[in-house]
Amino acid sequence: MIRTESVSVSPETLKEKIKELVESEKTKQGKFFNLFINALIFLSIISISIETLPNLNAGYKSALNLFEIFSVIIFSIEYITRISVADNKKQYIFSFYGMIDLIAIIPFYLSLGIDIRSLRIFRLLRLARILKATRYWKAIRRLKYAFISIKAELVIFIAITFGVLYIAAIGIYYFENPSQPEEFKSVFHSLWWAIATLTTVGYGDVYPITMGGRLFTFIILMIGIGLISVPTGLISSALTKSLKKENNI
Amino acid sequence: MIRTESVSVSPETLKEKIKELVESEKTKQGKFFNLFINALIFLSIISISIETLPNLNAGYKSALNLFEIFSVIIFSIEYITRISVADNKKQYIFSFYGMIDLIAIIPFYLSLGIDIRSLRIFRLLRLARILKATRYWKAIRRLKYAFISIKAELVIFIAITFGVLYIAAIGIYYFENPSQPEEFKSVFHSLWWAIATLTTVGYGDVYPITMGGRLFTFIILMIGIGLISVPTGLISSALTKSLKKENNI
Amino acid sequence: MIRTESVSVSPETLKEKIKELVESEKTKQGKFFNLFINALIFLSIISISIETLPNLNAGYKSALNLFEIFSVIIFSIEYITRISVADNKKQYIFSFYGMIDLIAIIPFYLSLGIDIRSLRIFRLLRLARILKATRYWKAIRRLKYAFISIKAELVIFIAITFGVLYIAAIGIYYFENPSQPEEFKSVFHSLWWAIATLTTVGYGDVYPITMGGRLFTFIILMIGIGLISVPTGLISSALTKSLKKENNI
Amino acid sequence: MIRTESVSVSPETLKEKIKELVESEKTKQGKFFNLFINALIFLSIISISIETLPNLNAGYKSALNLFEIFSVIIFSIEYITRISVADNKKQYIFSFYGMIDLIAIIPFYLSLGIDIRSLRIFRLLRLARILKATRYWKAIRRLKYAFISIKAELVIFIAITFGVLYIAAIGIYYFENPSQPEEFKSVFHSLWWAIATLTTVGYGDVYPITMGGRLFTFIILMIGIGLISVPTGLISSALTKSLKKENNI
Repeated sequence: MIRTESVSVSPETLKEKIKELVESEKTKQGKFFNLFINALIFLSIISISIETLPNLNAGYKSALNLFEIFSVIIFSIEYITRISVADNKKQYIFSFYGMIDLIAIIPFYLSLGIDIRSLRIFRLLRLARILKATRYWKAIRRLKYAFISIKAELVIFIAITFGVLYIAAIGIYYFENPSQPEEFKSVFHSLWWAIATLTTVGYGDVYPITMGGRLFTFIILMIGIGLISVPTGLISSALTKSLKKENNI
Repeated sequence: MIRTESVSVSPETLKEKIKELVESEKTKQGKFFNLFINALIFLSIISISIETLPNLNAGYKSALNLFEIFSVIIFSIEYITRISVADNKKQYIFSFYGMIDLIAIIPFYLSLGIDIRSLRIFRLLRLARILKATRYWKAIRRLKYAFISIKAELVIFIAITFGVLYIAAIGIYYFENPSQPEEFKSVFHSLWWAIATLTTVGYGDVYPITMGGRLFTFIILMIGIGLISVPTGLISSALTKSLKKENNI
Repeated sequence: MIRTESVSVSPETLKEKIKELVESEKTKQGKFFNLFINALIFLSIISISIETLPNLNAGYKSALNLFEIFSVIIFSIEYITRISVADNKKQYIFSFYGMIDLIAIIPFYLSLGIDIRSLRIFRLLRLARILKATRYWKAIRRLKYAFISIKAELVIFIAITFGVLYIAAIGIYYFENPSQPEEFKSVFHSLWWAIATLTTVGYGDVYPITMGGRLFTFIILMIGIGLISVPTGLISSALTKSLKKENNI
Repeated sequence: MIRTESVSVSPETLKEKIKELVESEKTKQGKFFNLFINALIFLSIISISIETLPNLNAGYKSALNLFEIFSVIIFSIEYITRISVADNKKQYIFSFYGMIDLIAIIPFYLSLGIDIRSLRIFRLLRLARILKATRYWKAIRRLKYAFISIKAELVIFIAITFGVLYIAAIGIYYFENPSQPEEFKSVFHSLWWAIATLTTVGYGDVYPITMGGRLFTFIILMIGIGLISVPTGLISSALTKSLKKENNI
């Protein structure tokens, strides 16, 4: 409880101070450190997209490159610091956040010729720390519990969805292939139609033109609407239940 | 409680009468005044659209212009009257309705050369007063409480939606850019695809054509359907809860 | 309670027998009569569609015409019979089913030159009698009560939907009209885009191409998804409530 | 309870052992047998799709053919074995799984010239056994009870959906046929538009272009969104109810 503020900083105190800086958000410095790291994550995620802009002049490109090197150096220092100040180093390394912190920097060191820059997108997951430290924590836990309580139902839903998609693809193939051999080349090509239709996206690049195919689409869509309403119903009932539990206890 | 009906109207009584006319809907005159203002709001909103009709002849155009000047004058008089009769002038000016009343007229006075006529659309918000004064008030309060109780969850939902949209845009860019460099020019252009797909609108102006891109679309859509069902589930459970509370108390 | 079976049928008994035939479904004859009328309604509804088939030869056309005359005669006799056997003639005429029965035949008598054959579609409503007489009655009542309990909220939802549609149309007009003057001619033309987009139908005949228009579409869609989830949430919570009430009492 | 393990296996013990192998998943051999059969079902379902790939060379084709013959032989042996070891042969044959087991092999024996290979897709249903034997059983029962409790409401929903679809088709035909006689040829052709629109798929192959048709589409879509939210609400409330029942008892 008693903290000694001596002029000559002993290594233990230094480590403790760094630990406080990195892990806690209660001190002013900790808050600033967190804000800085999160801003850097945010900017480095945006820079992935800016890099893809066509007709980007050489000046901007090298600036983005420099920024990437800079941010990876910072992230690497942060990662090593987090390991060294952790009470249980192994536990941190293999924790969710420890893994994410590593994944955020490793693509840079591995990218020797191969283009795996897009993997930097995983830095997005680092932003999960923001949510963790906020008043949204309670809501996240509520959503998490709701999802856990319907895990089995969701697995069944996904299994049935796969089944329906496959049946839809085979069915439409047999109806439409004779009249549209290019659009419905094989069952695998028809799967694309099944996905775009059952999710009601309906791009309009492939659609049935035969009477049989349209009737089949109608039946599949009636099932599909029923299917899509199941996860909504599940989540809704799970949330209703979890809200009630919270109120009672 | 005692109101004096004298022949020579004293300024206090006049102010009170105007206050009753403007703020209350219980008297016959108050009802008529409200109806007149709401009709004017409604017509002025419609006139915004009529103005945009191509091949509108000069006669109609000047008539619309005159109507706009007329309605702004009425709204301005109404605004000044509302301020002068308000018990707490400052409170009215900075209240929701006070702000809206100002926003409804200010674009007219500011439009010196610049085209900000479209801002007149904010007059729509003035119609919120209609709902306020009706038997729908209870239902609005119910909806409002339901939304407030899930505010934290909605913020998380929006944050995750932004994350998923960004991941979708980066993913599809890497899959589709080599084969469709025009449609998927950059990650920012791919974001448009991500928006149209995850909301299941699917205009059909951009869609994946590679095997990888289609598989990626499928995975993103499975997540997207799950995502879209979350707000429905949230609202549904919040309403169930708020209805129950109402019945108990 | 005592029914006299005399050889010479008195007018009273005849009326009673016809009443039983027409209004009750408990006797064998009543069941047959109902089945016959419902089959006729069904066939006459289908015939509306068959008539629209292009390249229909004259033989089929006159057959369909004769069938229409035949079914209207039957429906007219039925209507008159229902009036004459009703205990309270006025009540039947102005009841929901009485009105529907009239609407089902009146277009035929009025169609002197004018084409109002499509109004025959209202015969569909006559089929509501089928549902009434079945074990589905309880479920219909449950659905009806659920809808009644959220009537105020639905009215607000529809009002807000109209507002959002209008704002969407005006917004997209200002963003897209300069680059697509043909597709987004006026706010009224833009409303069509707003309808197809907010309902997530997305035909793909009109869609934004400017950066501003696409960003605006994204914001409108985020609101739109929230909006669409409201009626689902309302119906879901209303049904949960009505199911609970039923179980308790 | 006492099982005799003799060197000379008596027919009774053999039958019992096979029964255990085929029907139970508790023994190691039973687990292996099940895994083998399920893998074979899975592969034979995939092979249906591979067969449809265009430009498949003769070698692959005959390999797929051989695999099909092989799997049908195994399934046939399995089917006969299941009958012979069943305690009640008749009950097994007419049970859900017995029927499915037969349907999975019968298309092969019937395909004398006629192409009914696509019926092999029914083998998908055999995979239902996987779900039966797992910890998902409880969740399936919950979903099943939820669906049973809203059966009547779902029937009404489907009836109303058919009615709305038919009204939509007839309405749009009268609005659009004069200006788009090719796309909206007859009410039956317009039904395709009604299906694609009310399910919000919106392929974009047919859409209204007249003012009347678009207004009608808007009204139909407002009803359609309400309709689609009904099954979600039903399932959600049924699941909420079934979860509550489970918790109480």
